[in-house]
Amino acid sequence: MNVESKPKTALPLLVDKQYFTFAQPPNEMVLDSGTRLGPITLAYETYGTLDASKSNAVLILHACTGDSHVAGYYSNDPKSESRPGWWDNMVGPGKPIDTNKYFVICSNILGGCMGSTGPSSINPETNRQYGCDFPMVTIRDMVRAQKYLIENLGISKIMSLIGGSVGGMQVLRWCTDYPDMVASAIPLATTTRHSAQAIAFNEVARQAIMADPNWKEGDYYDSTGPIHGLAVARMVGHITYLSDEAMRNKFGRRLQERSSLSYDFGADFQVESYLRHQGTKFVKRFDANSLLYITKAADYFDLEKGDGCSLINEAITKITFLVASFTSDWLYPTYQSKNLVSALKKNGCDVSFCEIDAEWGHDAFLLPNKRLDSLIGQFLNRVYDECLSD
Amino acid sequence: MNVESKPKTALPLLVDKQYFTFAQPPNEMVLDSGTRLGPITLAYETYGTLDASKSNAVLILHACTGDSHVAGYYSNDPKSESRPGWWDNMVGPGKPIDTNKYFVICSNILGGCMGSTGPSSINPETNRQYGCDFPMVTIRDMVRAQKYLIENLGISKIMSLIGGSVGGMQVLRWCTDYPDMVASAIPLATTTRHSAQAIAFNEVARQAIMADPNWKEGDYYDSTGPIHGLAVARMVGHITYLSDEAMRNKFGRRLQERSSLSYDFGADFQVESYLRHQGTKFVKRFDANSLLYITKAADYFDLEKGDGCSLINEAITKITFLVASFTSDWLYPTYQSKNLVSALKKNGCDVSFCEIDAEWGHDAFLLPNKRLDSLIGQFLNRVYDECLSD
Repeated sequence: MNVESKPKTALPLLVDKQYFTFAQPPNEMVLDSGTRLGPITLAYETYGTLDASKSNAVLILHACTGDSHVAGYYSNDPKSESRPGWWDNMVGPGKPIDTNKYFVICSNILGGCMGSTGPSSINPETNRQYGCDFPMVTIRDMVRAQKYLIENLGISKIMSLIGGSVGGMQVLRWCTDYPDMVASAIPLATTTRHSAQAIAFNEVARQAIMADPNWKEGDYYDSTGPIHGLAVARMVGHITYLSDEAMRNKFGRRLQERSSLSYDFGADFQVESYLRHQGTKFVKRFDANSLLYITKAADYFDLEKGDGCSLINEAITKITFLVASFTSDWLYPTYQSKNLVSALKKNGCDVSFCEIDAEWGHDAFLLPNKRLDSLIGQFLNRVYDECLSD
Repeated sequence: MNVESKPKTALPLLVDKQYFTFAQPPNEMVLDSGTRLGPITLAYETYGTLDASKSNAVLILHACTGDSHVAGYYSNDPKSESRPGWWDNMVGPGKPIDTNKYFVICSNILGGCMGSTGPSSINPETNRQYGCDFPMVTIRDMVRAQKYLIENLGISKIMSLIGGSVGGMQVLRWCTDYPDMVASAIPLATTTRHSAQAIAFNEVARQAIMADPNWKEGDYYDSTGPIHGLAVARMVGHITYLSDEAMRNKFGRRLQERSSLSYDFGADFQVESYLRHQGTKFVKRFDANSLLYITKAADYFDLEKGDGCSLINEAITKITFLVASFTSDWLYPTYQSKNLVSALKKNGCDVSFCEIDAEWGHDAFLLPNKRLDSLIGQFLNRVYDECLSD
């Protein structure tokens, strides 16, 4: 087989997971809580090539349960049947976030469980997993850790930050905390702070985990773990990621593999079976403690609190913004994005805003959408040209 | 103290819980599933006096976790500090459902745990609680049992049926199954069938209960019971009963009894504390198995399935309807009530419909609301006058 005769874009995008470790004791990173944490490892992946002027970097910030594997396949597993990265429709050669043109970086967040330091990591003081001895981390702490990674890659200014949901919170925190390191930012389907309802859903998820006797105050790594509670937590989350309309179109009241009601507590409806499947699948890939920590960080995030509105400051006005929300997203509804846009505009920022028509609810930012593709593609082209002309 | 000098309406409304037992073996009631169940006891309460022509009966159908205690205080506990019945603002002397004028009946539903036969009742075959040996019951089964009670009270025609949420489903099932026994009906904040999203939330609640190891396949009556799972189930439900707006106004992001974040998994926000409290309180009064059975019955309910649309039949056209929905109810949104109204109108029924402006979400039908008071009060007056003139 002559591989070279294939067009270049038909080759699968291959990537390796890399690791960066810093904050070695006694120089640990000081967290928002005041606790010191170190060493810290971030798992990350890069796609494309950093240009000579180091001005084509795009940093993607993943959502609550995402990871660094944003696109393509791992190079040590090229023929695997495994699914490509979580945003493969958006990131790759010739795609809106074009890896032929941009140097794309994505790191697993601090507190996560996909290679970065989190509650399932080994605590060097005890040589056992941290569990709930892991200190609480905030969105600001996650971003601070990413900054060390970016600096280590020799990048002093990021061309564009992109992230949806909790990733969008990181985008915003980057802009407020390190505005001089950011040329442009694309916060998608996100908010400047959780509503009471969003906190409530997260709290139910946490309570479902903590109610599971196998949670054991977070010290479960030698045993089965709170798999039942974690599955329920995921089911709750999953409902909030979809929409009434999406669920009606996808499932309606269709029955599962039988033509009549069971009159028992089995899964009668397809939507029940789907949710159970989502719960079971999630348990295999995600750590319950990480879900506790990350949801709490999201609940704590509040750009409108503390030192006035952090979005109102001089340095941030140099950043160009593209804000997008989705019509059926009821977790972070459009009014929250509009509040963000108003604050940015009031501050004199260059902001484009689009509410994208989509039935898929909060998940819409992850799914193929031509409107979103063209918005992001064109915005990055513009920013790239501006960076080149600087 | 001269009690007689007080105005009559200032006296507390006193009531006794009563019991009606029927379907004694070998004449058990045949359920929708084909299973036979008996004996069946319904706990019920009545308010006011049945008139000589037995034409002033108002049957109130309670929602998922309600009970027969719709208003006032129990006569054997008149001085208690306990809260009055769940719809005390609506039912009583001089109130919209005026017990000086109407004979009000409310019974705990079949499958419940407030005195009527349900999974926590003794199975006469084993002399132990049924648990999950209790047969699955449907909304139709609940209504069929109520019909025996109404007949036993000597009532051949109910002046008005009133119920919200799952109570509204019972109202509609009464109308389709026993139209000749119904003069008028008020389905509130309800639906002709659950959306996929509503089924999904119920399924999460059920999974939370069944994931608790203390559930023991429903056989927990000799031990603690699945209190943690049931609390999580209630928390999920509670979010769906409120609205984004109501939670924002009631809690916002206010912190709980401290001025700063805890950086642990305690309840930082008031909304977290409120949900935990709702979960803990619910566990003390409600049986987990009953929640499983009743939510399943609600999910099964489908007026648009089976023998065509049951709402389209000749007998039902003689019933006068008042349908009401609430602007912020996202569990049974207004579009679902409008579908119901369209079907009834298509069938030639006399239907009044009102979407009531309220921020409290699905719970709005239970809360004091002058618009709802006046709608129900005037509708009942009209129906009462029509019944008198018949």
